[in-house]
Amino acid sequence: MNNATALSNHQVRLARRPVGTPTRDEWSFTHEPVPEPTDGGVVVKTLALSLDPAMRGWMNEGKSYIPPVGIGEVMRAGGIGKIIASKNPDFAVGNLVSAGLGVQEYALFAQDQIKRSGMFRIDTRMGSMTQWLNVLGMPGMTGYFGLMDVGQPKFGETVVVSGAAGAVGQTVGQLAKIKGCRAVGIAGGRAKCDWVVNELGFDACIDYKGGNVRAGLKEHCPKGVDVYFDNVGGEILDDVLARIGRGARIIICGAISQYNNTTPVQGPKNYLSLLVNRARMEGIVVFDYADRFPAAVAELAGYLKDGRMKSKEDVVTGGVNAFPEALIKLFTGENFGKLVLQVATG
Amino acid sequence: MNNATALSNHQVRLARRPVGTPTRDEWSFTHEPVPEPTDGGVVVKTLALSLDPAMRGWMNEGKSYIPPVGIGEVMRAGGIGKIIASKNPDFAVGNLVSAGLGVQEYALFAQDQIKRSGMFRIDTRMGSMTQWLNVLGMPGMTGYFGLMDVGQPKFGETVVVSGAAGAVGQTVGQLAKIKGCRAVGIAGGRAKCDWVVNELGFDACIDYKGGNVRAGLKEHCPKGVDVYFDNVGGEILDDVLARIGRGARIIICGAISQYNNTTPVQGPKNYLSLLVNRARMEGIVVFDYADRFPAAVAELAGYLKDGRMKSKEDVVTGGVNAFPEALIKLFTGENFGKLVLQVATG
Repeated sequence: MNNATALSNHQVRLARRPVGTPTRDEWSFTHEPVPEPTDGGVVVKTLALSLDPAMRGWMNEGKSYIPPVGIGEVMRAGGIGKIIASKNPDFAVGNLVSAGLGVQEYALFAQDQIKRSGMFRIDTRMGSMTQWLNVLGMPGMTGYFGLMDVGQPKFGETVVVSGAAGAVGQTVGQLAKIKGCRAVGIAGGRAKCDWVVNELGFDACIDYKGGNVRAGLKEHCPKGVDVYFDNVGGEILDDVLARIGRGARIIICGAISQYNNTTPVQGPKNYLSLLVNRARMEGIVVFDYADRFPAAVAELAGYLKDGRMKSKEDVVTGGVNAFPEALIKLFTGENFGKLVLQVATG
Repeated sequence: MNNATALSNHQVRLARRPVGTPTRDEWSFTHEPVPEPTDGGVVVKTLALSLDPAMRGWMNEGKSYIPPVGIGEVMRAGGIGKIIASKNPDFAVGNLVSAGLGVQEYALFAQDQIKRSGMFRIDTRMGSMTQWLNVLGMPGMTGYFGLMDVGQPKFGETVVVSGAAGAVGQTVGQLAKIKGCRAVGIAGGRAKCDWVVNELGFDACIDYKGGNVRAGLKEHCPKGVDVYFDNVGGEILDDVLARIGRGARIIICGAISQYNNTTPVQGPKNYLSLLVNRARMEGIVVFDYADRFPAAVAELAGYLKDGRMKSKEDVVTGGVNAFPEALIKLFTGENFGKLVLQVATG
C-alpha cells in the first residue's frame, strides 16, 4: 500500500462471554484506521479466515491450552492474508502469508509479534489458499499428528473418525486409507456421508443424524475399532467406546457436541471399556508439533498433488460482518467441509 | 491325605446375578465329596482366599476381560492352598501353592487345569502366605505393572493413588516412593490416612470421607498430578482430572465406587482435561503381564525384606461361610489393608 492510514479496518471483538450457543449479541464491531508498520513490522490484509470449533473454547473464561480471548479484544482467528506494507526483510509487499490474523480486515504486526503469530509465507504451488487453511493448515496438522503420533495406526487396522466431513476428519480418514487402514467416518446427513465415501474414499460412513451409530459401528467395524479420532464427544464417544478392540487408541481432539452446553460436560459412561480392552484415550494439542509442521505439510501437499487426497472447503462470503452467523454453522453441523470466511478477494 | 473322598468340600456358588450390592441371597452353599486326583492332577486344600473388587465384575453378565462366573458355578477366587493329594510330579503333598482355587475348601485340578489356574509354588522365605495374596500376589502385580508400565513415573514426579490403604494402593504408593516420586494417597477415614502416611511413608493422604478432595489435591500436589492410579472412579477421578499436569498419565485399574451402581456408570465429566493437558488415560489388566510376574515378585520381595515396603492384610475368619459378608467390606471401605478370607489354618 502507499498509505495504509487511509484504510479503515473493520474488526469483530468479543463483547461478552456467551452462555450456550453464541449469538450476534456476543460481538461488537469496530472500525479503526490501519496504522503504518513500525520497524521490523508488517501490515497484512486479510483474505480468508479459518473458522474452527476451538473458537468456542477461546470465548470461555478459564484456563485452557491457550488463554481465553479477552473481553473487548479482536476475536482470535488464523487466516491467509497479503502483505500490504512491510518494514521486515522476510516479508515483501504482495507475499501471501498464513498467520493468526484475528477477525479483522487488516492486521498490524510489530516485529516481535510476527513470530508469535506463527506467520509464514505460503506457497500456492503446494495448495490453494483455502487448502492452506484446511489440509495444509491447522486442521490438517491436527489430523496428521493426532492420527500418526497419538493414534499410531498400523496397516490393516480400523480407524474411525467423527466429524468426518469436517476439516480435521477429512485429513484423518484419507490419511488412514493412505497408510493402509480401513477408514470409517461418522458424519451428519446422507449427503456428507455419501461424499465421504464416494469422493474421499472412506470405506464407510455412518450418518449419526439418520440412524443408530452403534449398529453402524457393528456393521462397518466387524473386527472392532483400533483407532478412534474423536472430534465430537457425547453419545458418539460412548458408542465407539462400546466397540473398541484390545489395545485401542482414542485421540481426544475435541468435543463439539459439548461446547455450547450450559450443563456440565457429559463424561463418557463407557470409559471402563478402556480397562477391559487395555485401551487408551489421549489428548492432542496441535501447537506441540509446530517444529514438525513443514515436514507434514510437504507430505500432505504431495498427496494433494498426486490425487490421493482431496479437500473440500465451505466458503462463506460477506466479510467479517458475516462472522457471527458463519461460526454457528459449525455447531449445527451445517458446514460441509472446512469452514472458511472470505474477507477479501485479493 | 490318605483318603480324600472321606472329606467334604464346602463350596460357595453364584446363585443369581446381583442388582446393586450383593447380599447373602446371591449365593448358594453346597457340600460335595472331595474326589481323588486323576493322572497329572492334584487336590489343593484352601488355606486363604483373596477377596478383590474385581469379583463384583465377575458376577455380572456380559463381556469383560474374562468371562463372568456362570450361575451355579463355584465363585472364582485366587488363593493360597496346600497340596493334599498329587499325581503330578511338579507338586508334592505339603507344597504351598497359589492358584485360582475358587471359594471352596478343596479344589480339584486335572492336569490341563493346573496351568490354566496359574498354579505355582510359593516360597514363604520371600513373603508370608498373606503377602503372597497381597504385595507378591495379583494386587501387587497390578500395582507394579500399572504404575511402572502404564504410568511410567519419572524421578521427582507426583503420583496419586486412590484406595491407598487397599491392596493395590499400598504397593503403588510405596513403589512410587522407592522410585523417587512424591506419593499422595486418597483413602477413606483418618485412621487409614494416618497409617498410609506414618507406616507406609506416603508424603500425604487425603481423607475423602472427611473433606474436600479437590482442596486436598491442591494442597498436596502443588505442581499438579503427573501420574494418577485410579482404583475408584466417580467423583474422585473427576477431582484428579481437574488437577493433572501436562502430559499426565492416568491408569484405569478399577472403579469401585461404580461397581454396585444400579444407574449407569458416572463418566468423568472432566475428561477434556486430557486434551488441555495432552494427558492420557489407559486401562490395565494384570494378566497381560504374566510372563513378567516372577521378576516383579523378586523385586518386591526384596523391598519387603529390606524394609522399604510394608504390607497390611485384613484377615477375616469364619471360612467360606463368611465369604458373602466379607466381600461387602470392600465396597463399604471397611477393610483396612488387603482383604483375605482365612479358610483353614494348615
